[in-house]
Amino acid sequence: MLGVCYYPEHWPEAWWAEDARRMRALGISYVRIGEFAWSRLEPKRGAYDFAWLERAMDTLAGAGLKIVLGTPTATPPKWLMDEYPDIAPVDEQGRVRGFGSRRHYTFSSESWWRESRSIVEAIATHFGEHPGLVGWQTDNEYGCHDTVLSWGPEDLKAFRKWLRRHYQTTDQLNEAWGNVFWSMEVQSFDEVSLPILAVTETNPAARLDFWRFKSEEVNAYDRMQCDIIRRFSPGRWVTHNFMGFFNEFDHWQLGRHLDLASWDSYPIGFVERFPFSEQERGRWAETSHPDIAPFHHDLYRGVGQDRFWVMEQQPGPVNWASWNPVPKPGMVRLWTWEAFAHGAEVVSYFRWRQAPFGQEQNHAGLNLPGLHELSQGGREAEAVSTELQVVGPLGAASRAQVAIVYDYQASWVTRIQPQGRDFCYHELVFRWYEAARRLGLDIDFVAPGASLQGYGLVLVPSMPIVSDAATEAFAKASGILLFGPRTGSRTSSFAIPDNLPPGPLADLTGTRTIEASSLRPNVRHRVSGAVSGHAIRWRDHLEAKGEIIARFDDGLPALVSNGRSFLLACWPDGELTQSVLSAVATSAALDTCSLPDHVRLRRRDGLTFAFNYGGVEWICPDGVEILVGDRVLCSQQLAIWRSPAPH
Amino acid sequence: MLGVCYYPEHWPEAWWAEDARRMRALGISYVRIGEFAWSRLEPKRGAYDFAWLERAMDTLAGAGLKIVLGTPTATPPKWLMDEYPDIAPVDEQGRVRGFGSRRHYTFSSESWWRESRSIVEAIATHFGEHPGLVGWQTDNEYGCHDTVLSWGPEDLKAFRKWLRRHYQTTDQLNEAWGNVFWSMEVQSFDEVSLPILAVTETNPAARLDFWRFKSEEVNAYDRMQCDIIRRFSPGRWVTHNFMGFFNEFDHWQLGRHLDLASWDSYPIGFVERFPFSEQERGRWAETSHPDIAPFHHDLYRGVGQDRFWVMEQQPGPVNWASWNPVPKPGMVRLWTWEAFAHGAEVVSYFRWRQAPFGQEQNHAGLNLPGLHELSQGGREAEAVSTELQVVGPLGAASRAQVAIVYDYQASWVTRIQPQGRDFCYHELVFRWYEAARRLGLDIDFVAPGASLQGYGLVLVPSMPIVSDAATEAFAKASGILLFGPRTGSRTSSFAIPDNLPPGPLADLTGTRTIEASSLRPNVRHRVSGAVSGHAIRWRDHLEAKGEIIARFDDGLPALVSNGRSFLLACWPDGELTQSVLSAVATSAALDTCSLPDHVRLRRRDGLTFAFNYGGVEWICPDGVEILVGDRVLCSQQLAIWRSPAPH
Amino acid sequence: MLGVCYYPEHWPEAWWAEDARRMRALGISYVRIGEFAWSRLEPKRGAYDFAWLERAMDTLAGAGLKIVLGTPTATPPKWLMDEYPDIAPVDEQGRVRGFGSRRHYTFSSESWWRESRSIVEAIATHFGEHPGLVGWQTDNEYGCHDTVLSWGPEDLKAFRKWLRRHYQTTDQLNEAWGNVFWSMEVQSFDEVSLPILAVTETNPAARLDFWRFKSEEVNAYDRMQCDIIRRFSPGRWVTHNFMGFFNEFDHWQLGRHLDLASWDSYPIGFVERFPFSEQERGRWAETSHPDIAPFHHDLYRGVGQDRFWVMEQQPGPVNWASWNPVPKPGMVRLWTWEAFAHGAEVVSYFRWRQAPFGQEQNHAGLNLPGLHELSQGGREAEAVSTELQVVGPLGAASRAQVAIVYDYQASWVTRIQPQGRDFCYHELVFRWYEAARRLGLDIDFVAPGASLQGYGLVLVPSMPIVSDAATEAFAKASGILLFGPRTGSRTSSFAIPDNLPPGPLADLTGTRTIEASSLRPNVRHRVSGAVSGHAIRWRDHLEAKGEIIARFDDGLPALVSNGRSFLLACWPDGELTQSVLSAVATSAALDTCSLPDHVRLRRRDGLTFAFNYGGVEWICPDGVEILVGDRVLCSQQLAIWRSPAPH
Repeated sequence: MLGVCYYPEHWPEAWWAEDARRMRALGISYVRIGEFAWSRLEPKRGAYDFAWLERAMDTLAGAGLKIVLGTPTATPPKWLMDEYPDIAPVDEQGRVRGFGSRRHYTFSSESWWRESRSIVEAIATHFGEHPGLVGWQTDNEYGCHDTVLSWGPEDLKAFRKWLRRHYQTTDQLNEAWGNVFWSMEVQSFDEVSLPILAVTETNPAARLDFWRFKSEEVNAYDRMQCDIIRRFSPGRWVTHNFMGFFNEFDHWQLGRHLDLASWDSYPIGFVERFPFSEQERGRWAETSHPDIAPFHHDLYRGVGQDRFWVMEQQPGPVNWASWNPVPKPGMVRLWTWEAFAHGAEVVSYFRWRQAPFGQEQNHAGLNLPGLHELSQGGREAEAVSTELQVVGPLGAASRAQVAIVYDYQASWVTRIQPQGRDFCYHELVFRWYEAARRLGLDIDFVAPGASLQGYGLVLVPSMPIVSDAATEAFAKASGILLFGPRTGSRTSSFAIPDNLPPGPLADLTGTRTIEASSLRPNVRHRVSGAVSGHAIRWRDHLEAKGEIIARFDDGLPALVSNGRSFLLACWPDGELTQSVLSAVATSAALDTCSLPDHVRLRRRDGLTFAFNYGGVEWICPDGVEILVGDRVLCSQQLAIWRSPAPH
Repeated sequence: MLGVCYYPEHWPEAWWAEDARRMRALGISYVRIGEFAWSRLEPKRGAYDFAWLERAMDTLAGAGLKIVLGTPTATPPKWLMDEYPDIAPVDEQGRVRGFGSRRHYTFSSESWWRESRSIVEAIATHFGEHPGLVGWQTDNEYGCHDTVLSWGPEDLKAFRKWLRRHYQTTDQLNEAWGNVFWSMEVQSFDEVSLPILAVTETNPAARLDFWRFKSEEVNAYDRMQCDIIRRFSPGRWVTHNFMGFFNEFDHWQLGRHLDLASWDSYPIGFVERFPFSEQERGRWAETSHPDIAPFHHDLYRGVGQDRFWVMEQQPGPVNWASWNPVPKPGMVRLWTWEAFAHGAEVVSYFRWRQAPFGQEQNHAGLNLPGLHELSQGGREAEAVSTELQVVGPLGAASRAQVAIVYDYQASWVTRIQPQGRDFCYHELVFRWYEAARRLGLDIDFVAPGASLQGYGLVLVPSMPIVSDAATEAFAKASGILLFGPRTGSRTSSFAIPDNLPPGPLADLTGTRTIEASSLRPNVRHRVSGAVSGHAIRWRDHLEAKGEIIARFDDGLPALVSNGRSFLLACWPDGELTQSVLSAVATSAALDTCSLPDHVRLRRRDGLTFAFNYGGVEWICPDGVEILVGDRVLCSQQLAIWRSPAPH
Repeated sequence: MLGVCYYPEHWPEAWWAEDARRMRALGISYVRIGEFAWSRLEPKRGAYDFAWLERAMDTLAGAGLKIVLGTPTATPPKWLMDEYPDIAPVDEQGRVRGFGSRRHYTFSSESWWRESRSIVEAIATHFGEHPGLVGWQTDNEYGCHDTVLSWGPEDLKAFRKWLRRHYQTTDQLNEAWGNVFWSMEVQSFDEVSLPILAVTETNPAARLDFWRFKSEEVNAYDRMQCDIIRRFSPGRWVTHNFMGFFNEFDHWQLGRHLDLASWDSYPIGFVERFPFSEQERGRWAETSHPDIAPFHHDLYRGVGQDRFWVMEQQPGPVNWASWNPVPKPGMVRLWTWEAFAHGAEVVSYFRWRQAPFGQEQNHAGLNLPGLHELSQGGREAEAVSTELQVVGPLGAASRAQVAIVYDYQASWVTRIQPQGRDFCYHELVFRWYEAARRLGLDIDFVAPGASLQGYGLVLVPSMPIVSDAATEAFAKASGILLFGPRTGSRTSSFAIPDNLPPGPLADLTGTRTIEASSLRPNVRHRVSGAVSGHAIRWRDHLEAKGEIIARFDDGLPALVSNGRSFLLACWPDGELTQSVLSAVATSAALDTCSLPDHVRLRRRDGLTFAFNYGGVEWICPDGVEILVGDRVLCSQQLAIWRSPAPH
């Protein structure tokens, strides 16, 4: 099903009905509204004006559209900011991040919690049972523009409170953080300062706790909004629209109290933001890399407990990356189908019509700026709508045979203590994901500690802190396990385990890490044996009880096998990544193939989808019944066929 | 005529007469003084000490020198800054920019206006009718060191006042800025904040207004000084010394109330500051690029309504760039003659003698540091002085056949909203200028909205906001018009025009821009047809009613011709720039030639000047009468001959 | 002799005795303790707890270890920082640098001096005559993390006081600083502001004085600690542990009141911090460059007046560089022997056992994290200990034939006024040192103004300010003198000398510098004649009375010889550096050889040491008696033999 994001407050009321009619004509079923409209809903303290939105909802619903209503808390209005200056966040340099854009609040402000409750309650009460309303979105893109962490007096106050609750006594705090080091001990929780703006690096244990505290705050804040909505709007689901490559809070935790997950898919902008090489950035500039959107579809399907939407789908060029090219013709259609192939229930475009004013005036819509006229993206959405009729209703996404354990805490730990400047957690995960998909495999993302049963192969690219639950899940897993560098290298207090890394996984992996080496860009170490390639960026120096099936040139173990477990003692380059993934897929007896770098496959509900991100054409397998597309798959094209029955 | 900048306060009084005598012996006619001497003219509040400067002026005038007196407002003394802390500007990070160098004031401070009036009035009253005095310079290099914009409480107060005057009501402000977007609406002008230090990008319309407000402030401040000077110093002209590649305020506007323009020409430093490639920077490190100084001569000739000086001419190595090489022998002479070729009335060297102390101690002068002994630059100035006798008095610069419309607002718009990181307005203009000069053409710069009649070819590299006056000037232009990318893409309120770009030029160009693409450095699109090369950095995707005479590889229009108008839908690479300029020059039936990258020509008053910036020699045309130099033009040499009569 | 750094407060008291026993078993004689333990020694204001440290010292001494006790002033505890916020330093952006790591104090705070006196006196009184105590370390790594300079109100107050003392009157201050330039004159010392956060560059003379003031403060602070220690701890020596490539204060001055110098040798991290090329960084990533540690051994032997320790020796990978590789096997042993070869009395490893918590948890120790088990570094230390028995006691380092004058003020002057972005003083010195060692020469470092008699060759890579003492030392030197670029280019007031550079050395060198050119990376000038290669980065344009023995391509002098003096008028590239060093070594009639880039020699007390940093093997000379190692010197190996008698 298709959806669209719409801002009735941006257009003359006279346009609403025509917009709604044209949406329906295009095949759109869902419309998201309201999430930035606070200054229109409450122009002054307490002076609510809900009438215009009600008319808009009536009009949209009257045309047959189902409405998703956003709470407007991402944009508190100026009168509110002036009234409560403590709402504004503070950046890492100690500067107040003021009004003038969006997300200008810290999750630690008590004023902000009170004001948020007020507006959400007012809106939920008023609109909660509107007949056109089917679901809610809380706030908008938590954490966008680095707004999870904030470093002001409100944050310090809330952090001290959190610490008091967690540690009870400063003795326990001092012990957990190792504060004896450099005389950092405190005698009272009121002596604790924010782990920032010190002369040099602050205590990593303190920083990890600060991050956990902030992640929990985001979660609690969202739960607060959900609770209000559920109280006043029975029967409607609630979601939040997450972002791409965003690790600042634990999405698994937040996903647990949502009815479904959703995310905002801007595949092209991420080509600039992800740490690709310059050569790759040029290669994928106008199509995006073939794994960027899919990676997130799979991740958020996991976060949403098998239910997810794309809440905002890029419909053309955008405005926020360093460069913003027009996507190649066909890409909007291709991206939409990728989402469906990975299990999306709805793909909702951002936005109905390009705004000619404001910060996002260079962001395309399905219609040209200020006009009732489809853009290139609009025409491609129309094509998808027609094809959806051909394909018919899509069932649930099939469970994959491969699981990747995605660990937000691993991202925090390695950012707090990179040790080598280019150790980027989500880059490592992405590269493993890419290699697995180049083998034609479908992938599920799983939370640390969640059950791994039923997966033939479980990939753990890195997991510095291995909880008891995770240890147990690994023990109970039925498939092959592959662990990457730094796994088990820290306790939950950010210390090296007593038995050295991999800590609780020592028996499972049959290894002990003696020391670790971070390698600058022009240093690499050859790996050979059962797999081959080079270590780059990182090497763990291991002692192994398990079988050493590949070694570094200096003879130390590179890949150790121990029963169902494999441990890779380095950050692998492209060749080694592909070699290791092939090896473990073979051990797991998975069916694989070898895809070129621009083609990907994905199965859903008895269908196989093939996508060509461009370069040269690709030939679909013989003897399949193609529902959409051609056997000869040209650049920026896709094909859908009925999957052969599993053998 | 030659001039020089002199600081009597830096040297023993006993030296003044000898310095004046040696200046005259060198052939210098003008001397600029006084512009940084506030702490000597008013050592304490109200305790003026004008006697020393009067003695200095008497000495200089007595030797036959004509005096240009600067107002000392670029360097308010410490006692004043301590008295009025509100004078100090505030940077983009919110930090006060304090005392200790120069230009430590914001144009928004009311205290500053009052104090400026005082000192200018005191000096103008005292010296205004000094017999040696011929002209004035206001302040020094407005905006140097990023001092146009300032972000403190004084600036906010003045900005709110400006907005109140311009918009009368917040409804009109909210409407013009599109403040409904992200709930940015304000209910009172006192709710407006500076468009800075928000969580993410602030409203581009607000930022453009802030820039206009600041530009108007600079202009009003200068007019205030001019008014005082004219009241107390009848018969003397007033100028200001502008800078190179500096777009922070509208120079056209300021130029209108001056008697003549002047600028400070430091050709070598700009090799590091202009966005040249590393290869170009190496190539031109010790000579400067052959278009840097000429570009500004032509621009400031326009700003000065056909009258301009070089107020400060680089006489050797300087101190302020990342690297500061000694210019190759001959370059000081060559630069001086370039200025005259482009119409300069006077070239005034900075400075008479290198200062052995202070921030500019590594800045060469015509004399060695602290000595009465010419430097290499001094000897070259001496050579020019002799040659000037040979050539005789120079008449006014000839009107060129080619006009470039230079638009300060275009610079602001594209800096506020680059959309592609490397879209630099003045770089684009410079590259078009360079290509035109490689064709041997002379060029005038013209203000947006000024008359274009009489020009065979009008170049508009980019003009996002096209005013009514500009629209009319284009309509009335008699020659060929070439418009570049992003032209007409914004209304004066920084919104996309209702009819899409190029807005008011839609009929003239026969085009409509549907979307725009910014291209990262390793992405380029082939153009072929009547012209050829590649699009880099930027592409407008057009619909064309006019004739499509070149296309991109995907078939979309690259160059559209519509009567006298041509529209180029991209940022052209070097090959395409040269190809397009050739094509339009041919359409305009201009005489062109093809010059190597290191040679340039320029005509003035019946003379042709040829300059060789080095590399290999160049042969001057046969059969011309060479007044200065040789037919075989060696590296770092120039030649002057009588131009053949126009055919 | 070997030593180790130990933190009893980090481990259970039950472990101390076992640790001490294992230290002795490893061959360790000295143990440094206590330098970060303030929060344990004084948990609350005045509540000293010395008992635990006394027990630790008793235990260590009881096992036969000699104790070096550190004063804990690098880590003032939180209760103290809360009590006296004026202690915290302020960074160049005006931000307070708070608690949370170490070195959070400014040397200008009066509160800090008072509190430092208290704790040092308390500790010196209590422990000063402990029988195991042999020496003291003051504080820890003065200036680490940029903590010499600080820019807050306390610093301003102290700076004004310093200026008042030095200049007596503002007239003298204004004159010395050239404040007439840009109206920077002050009428009272209370008008002086810190030379920072101005609109553009502040007065270089002011900045140099600020640096001198700060350097003197560090020295006075250390002398204050030394005085207290010497009063209460008779018979013990005092040292401070300096850092590598650290020029922020004058180490010569501080060294004068110490009994011996010591420094902290982390050879690998410096590969990232020194301005090596990327290619060199890759080449030396896992071994360090062969001159990094030796350069500092020689420098600190000079600073310590022939006595120095390595107080902290890198024992494996560390945590603080951009990348932190594991050193190649053998390097810890090799580095240890390098130190001994250069005259170290003791090499003390940092640290006994890797800490599993705190900021340095990724910093290796001689034992694995939290374990009683040697690391790779621990095993190599053990090997050295055995070899030390073989070699026997080492006498004093031999006096070298080559002296390099190392001038901290030269570093300040060229940082304050680089004039070319890549003019880095210590890089220049290092490259000359490297070239001399590639000739097989031993080197002493000498303070500016100290006697140069007895040296065959004296190298002065650059010395902008030449004091009277230095002028006299050069005049009295008996050997060949080689001066580099910028020498004599400034007076002590940071002005160009009246007679132009090289100022007081004009007669000695037979030159006068007319102007100077800084060259960007892709510009270089050919030098040929008695030496050959290229000038890069910097050229002085000279007039020469002496003999011009090499010239630049434009004919200007490159190398001028004048009796015993040579002056090189540029920053030489690698080829030219080697060529010039060979030429002057020949003039000085020194014995040289030509070593590959990975091999170095060093003599001490009748022994010759050879070190192979890796790549390919190297053959030791025939006919020598090898005490340690093999004639075929493999990668990461060393050899020691009896030096042949000098011929």
